[in-house]
Amino acid sequence: MRLLLISNSTNAGEAFLAYPQRELASFLAGVSEVLFIPYAAVTFSYEEYLLKVQARFRALHITVRSVHRESNPAQAVRQAQAVVVGGGNTFALLGRMQQEGLIAAIRERVEEGMPYVGWSAGSNVACPTIGTTNDMPIVEPASFFALRLIPFQINPHYTDEVLQGHAGETREQRILEYIEANPSMYVVGLREGSILRLEGDALSLIGSRPMRVFRQGESPRELSSGEDLSFLLR
Amino acid sequence: MRLLLISNSTNAGEAFLAYPQRELASFLAGVSEVLFIPYAAVTFSYEEYLLKVQARFRALHITVRSVHRESNPAQAVRQAQAVVVGGGNTFALLGRMQQEGLIAAIRERVEEGMPYVGWSAGSNVACPTIGTTNDMPIVEPASFFALRLIPFQINPHYTDEVLQGHAGETREQRILEYIEANPSMYVVGLREGSILRLEGDALSLIGSRPMRVFRQGESPRELSSGEDLSFLLR
Repeated sequence: MRLLLISNSTNAGEAFLAYPQRELASFLAGVSEVLFIPYAAVTFSYEEYLLKVQARFRALHITVRSVHRESNPAQAVRQAQAVVVGGGNTFALLGRMQQEGLIAAIRERVEEGMPYVGWSAGSNVACPTIGTTNDMPIVEPASFFALRLIPFQINPHYTDEVLQGHAGETREQRILEYIEANPSMYVVGLREGSILRLEGDALSLIGSRPMRVFRQGESPRELSSGEDLSFLLR
Repeated sequence: MRLLLISNSTNAGEAFLAYPQRELASFLAGVSEVLFIPYAAVTFSYEEYLLKVQARFRALHITVRSVHRESNPAQAVRQAQAVVVGGGNTFALLGRMQQEGLIAAIRERVEEGMPYVGWSAGSNVACPTIGTTNDMPIVEPASFFALRLIPFQINPHYTDEVLQGHAGETREQRILEYIEANPSMYVVGLREGSILRLEGDALSLIGSRPMRVFRQGESPRELSSGEDLSFLLR
């Protein structure tokens, strides 16, 4: 399997998909067209989202089609060279993917070797479930079960920062609740500016910041680019 | 109906349930025993949660029983003088309430006039759905449908603050997504330190901070204590 799972599309103060640009070019080398899944868009249209992604992929000399323009989205997945799943609201994204029959279609193709790129919500739906999303549950998907392209959970936009004077849970507290309720699962807190790349059975972290790994009964630990991550795939 | 819906149990730097103490005493005047619902607890036990609430309600001269000690939780609701639903993880809370048959039992009793107190997740489950929770979806409830004691949604712990340099959605952006996906619904952003009290058909905001009201197609507006909130009940 070939996966590029990006924490966030846009670092604060930078252009859309700017920091992952070099990694996208390397990961998608040889691909001339990708199929985009825009279903995480809620407050802007699928068409607007497509135009934004097209503008960015033009620099990579890659054409972008979008499933929202296709009469048969699952069939479009079966014929795609690569799939790119954009961020936004994870519940809206997963619900629509389920409705359109994209879960099975994407899994099959990715297992055959089709490259998969996701950022934010698009990285969350690559996990077994969407149980580690940060998003508001604005719509109810058929279930929380997602693509399960990897056997662990990602928390995108992972942050150590807390709002001063605010009594709500910190991100770490939320993940500690998750592992308490799901004791067999690893959770990777993927900080902004970070990417996980899977090539076959080789998983690597790309970026200058470590990721934070959580599992019930273990102390959270920090792992940096270059360290062995194979335990996450067992 | 009689409802006391509290944004958060604990303001930063204060004791548990300290700021709502006077309002709890007024709302529960004449009640000698409440039934506590501790199901939102995830990283601590229901028993620990009960002890914490008992300690606080002792000052009000009110005994606290908890449904987790009852062999028939729904029956305990039918016999309760008042129900108190604690905060924690909203998904865990709603899922367990559904499993134990508490949704119908609580609704019936509240419609008959039994006082209902909730804070944080306990205020969220009083809404039509849990679609405006801030919590991580660590477990999947049978559905997002909740008690529907009020016809609008509350976002507890509402905050205007943003993490500097973080690219994730602000709270307002998340609610704007919600109203886009749910265009007929009002959402009340209930800031920390704030309480909504319903007595029959009179809804009032208690606290020094305004609440922020959102609806699709309308500009968000700030409403303060003393202002007419009856439009939310239509």
